[in-house]
Amino acid sequence: MTETEPPDRRRRISLRTSRMEALSDGIFAIAATLLVLDLTIPAVTSRDVGHQLAMQWPTYVAYMVSFATIGTAWLNHSVITEYLDRADAILLRLNLALLFFVSVLPFPTHMLAEYLSNEGAERIAVTVYGLNLLAISGFIAIVWHYALWQRLVTKDNSEADVRALTTKLDPSLASYAVVIGIGLWRPGIAVALYFAIALFLFIPFRTVLREARSRRRS
Amino acid sequence: MTETEPPDRRRRISLRTSRMEALSDGIFAIAATLLVLDLTIPAVTSRDVGHQLAMQWPTYVAYMVSFATIGTAWLNHSVITEYLDRADAILLRLNLALLFFVSVLPFPTHMLAEYLSNEGAERIAVTVYGLNLLAISGFIAIVWHYALWQRLVTKDNSEADVRALTTKLDPSLASYAVVIGIGLWRPGIAVALYFAIALFLFIPFRTVLREARSRRRS
Amino acid sequence: MTETEPPDRRRRISLRTSRMEALSDGIFAIAATLLVLDLTIPAVTSRDVGHQLAMQWPTYVAYMVSFATIGTAWLNHSVITEYLDRADAILLRLNLALLFFVSVLPFPTHMLAEYLSNEGAERIAVTVYGLNLLAISGFIAIVWHYALWQRLVTKDNSEADVRALTTKLDPSLASYAVVIGIGLWRPGIAVALYFAIALFLFIPFRTVLREARSRRRS
Amino acid sequence: MTETEPPDRRRRISLRTSRMEALSDGIFAIAATLLVLDLTIPAVTSRDVGHQLAMQWPTYVAYMVSFATIGTAWLNHSVITEYLDRADAILLRLNLALLFFVSVLPFPTHMLAEYLSNEGAERIAVTVYGLNLLAISGFIAIVWHYALWQRLVTKDNSEADVRALTTKLDPSLASYAVVIGIGLWRPGIAVALYFAIALFLFIPFRTVLREARSRRRS
Repeated sequence: MTETEPPDRRRRISLRTSRMEALSDGIFAIAATLLVLDLTIPAVTSRDVGHQLAMQWPTYVAYMVSFATIGTAWLNHSVITEYLDRADAILLRLNLALLFFVSVLPFPTHMLAEYLSNEGAERIAVTVYGLNLLAISGFIAIVWHYALWQRLVTKDNSEADVRALTTKLDPSLASYAVVIGIGLWRPGIAVALYFAIALFLFIPFRTVLREARSRRRS
Repeated sequence: MTETEPPDRRRRISLRTSRMEALSDGIFAIAATLLVLDLTIPAVTSRDVGHQLAMQWPTYVAYMVSFATIGTAWLNHSVITEYLDRADAILLRLNLALLFFVSVLPFPTHMLAEYLSNEGAERIAVTVYGLNLLAISGFIAIVWHYALWQRLVTKDNSEADVRALTTKLDPSLASYAVVIGIGLWRPGIAVALYFAIALFLFIPFRTVLREARSRRRS
Repeated sequence: MTETEPPDRRRRISLRTSRMEALSDGIFAIAATLLVLDLTIPAVTSRDVGHQLAMQWPTYVAYMVSFATIGTAWLNHSVITEYLDRADAILLRLNLALLFFVSVLPFPTHMLAEYLSNEGAERIAVTVYGLNLLAISGFIAIVWHYALWQRLVTKDNSEADVRALTTKLDPSLASYAVVIGIGLWRPGIAVALYFAIALFLFIPFRTVLREARSRRRS
Repeated sequence: MTETEPPDRRRRISLRTSRMEALSDGIFAIAATLLVLDLTIPAVTSRDVGHQLAMQWPTYVAYMVSFATIGTAWLNHSVITEYLDRADAILLRLNLALLFFVSVLPFPTHMLAEYLSNEGAERIAVTVYGLNLLAISGFIAIVWHYALWQRLVTKDNSEADVRALTTKLDPSLASYAVVIGIGLWRPGIAVALYFAIALFLFIPFRTVLREARSRRRS
């Protein structure tokens, strides 16, 4: 379909993708950086500031899980926009819905850090946090599947590449759903698992293997 | 007019549009993300944190209306810049006036969330909020009409496209003006209507219809 | 000099300008938007919230002067980068020094809003504020004169264009210096004059005249 | 390797670099600007606001060291991305790890400003701060060495250019490590040395010399 369009129309549409990328990069960057405002400094009433800083470990864990989650969401988002040839009105709105859940993440992160040692509140915080992570992953998958369905991706990608990204996005959805269930019962374990998922998504096992293989070949 | 200019002058002018877009994307992204700082965490004095979180519903409503309004303003703004061929000194300043009202939106949003259950203050908050939404819509319409008047848009757009955008921008102005009036009398209803307008602008009825029609044809 | 360089070197250098523009747009956008965090909401202890909001007028004045100043600084900066053909290591650092004074502006703005009704503190706040505005204008002029001196601007600009920008940047420096002097003696008048300067720089008298003239000719 | 790839693959890969640059510029800009939130205004209880503002000097020192450090990190980062021809999955993640330490810098900066006059806390703050500066420098060096190792840099750079950047990045690592050691023993001196390193990295001695030499030749 793209080939038959006049050249100028293509330029206009690629420009639309550029602003979608710019807004997304802005919101990813701000959400990731605003997290730091939750890291508060204990007052120096006593001498053991070091101890008090160490006692704030739930804040640091929440910070790191959220940063890693935003980081991996950005990585997946940037892979999607590389395949994107153009955007349409619905894709832009699905992307805004994704950005809504990215920009709101500092709120459950703050909640998690605050409530992590309180039994009743902890369960609520961990569940809200998990639902937010699920929504981010879910809307990334929706944006990707919508783009495939509407053929907004470039044609020159191999089927293998497209399938690889699809098989990468969908399992993380299932794992978040499972961990939300675990969190209702054992909130502490759920936090550890969210950290594990973030690390697993962050470390590029697949790429390391592929690089090693292509290196051996050449 | 553009065709007779030397090639380098065109490059320079398109660059000017790119910085206007970059600043705009930055301010839209930051205003949308700063809204999250208003979502505060109730202290865990009692066990019913869930109840206290639920009682904060005005904050969540204000957050969602503001995010959706900034989102739709960005959508309209990105459509305008796609038609823009170049900018002039007045357009850049009209755009800065628009960005002023975008960047100030977290203030009436915070006011709305804080005053929504208080009778006297609620009316002021809803009115100030409505005036801010009106100013955002108004300056988007002004930027668009100025660009049309000064022929800063690309020539290759069909008349139909340009008219479509115009007929989309102007009615939202009228509806905001009406709801401000309603808000003076019934503030609660006005908030519900602002939410309805944001949702109506966000869901792309027109595009869904056009897509369906073009699909049937091919 | 640029014509004799290999094509790839030119690409690399123009890319350097693009990152300088991106960082600058980011810092201008964030500094302008962070100002909103100073607009605080009075508590609803009494009924007269409207009166209390109106009493906060120094905050609104400080907000508007700072936003307009950042806006005009951005306008001048974007004109400079349009003339720029490439950057060098010193220009990037002079630009960072400019961005330092842009990013620090929310601090004296907050000071001005807080101290504006207090006699002793007001003088300090107005002076610090004025020095910050002077530093922003000063570094914009330094960046521009350095770029001219090192011939980092594109060759195809008419002498008239370059002189026009120079004669626009330098007078604002002198006016800030004068107003800082006035502020030591009459702080209130200085604030009004900063507002007047910002408005005068914001409204494009020169362009309106030129547009009118070119319109009459064609 | 790049020459043998199909043209479209090159375009897709260069696009990936553009989003990595956009996110990086965003996080550098926000981290640098969020620092201003630490500059608090003393209350006007007494007349000597000027004295109280002057007493806040540790806050200003911390602000300036952090801004200069983020500025020089951005300068080095922008030089690296100019040499970069394309990114791979591991480079993007190493860059995210760098951005993590950039975005967290406002936390130890706040700690340093708060604890600088308190004997016990000062040592902890200076050490944590130094480790953060070391991590930023370290990950910039890692990103650069990884890009060289994987041949992600453009081929047309002279060996001399590449070596020049390498010899510039590595010594700052060593100096941070030494100053962390000094800080355990004399925290105040370490802060002065961090300021000296930031200034030394900020002032472009090498470029000034090279410019002078090339000027003499022509």
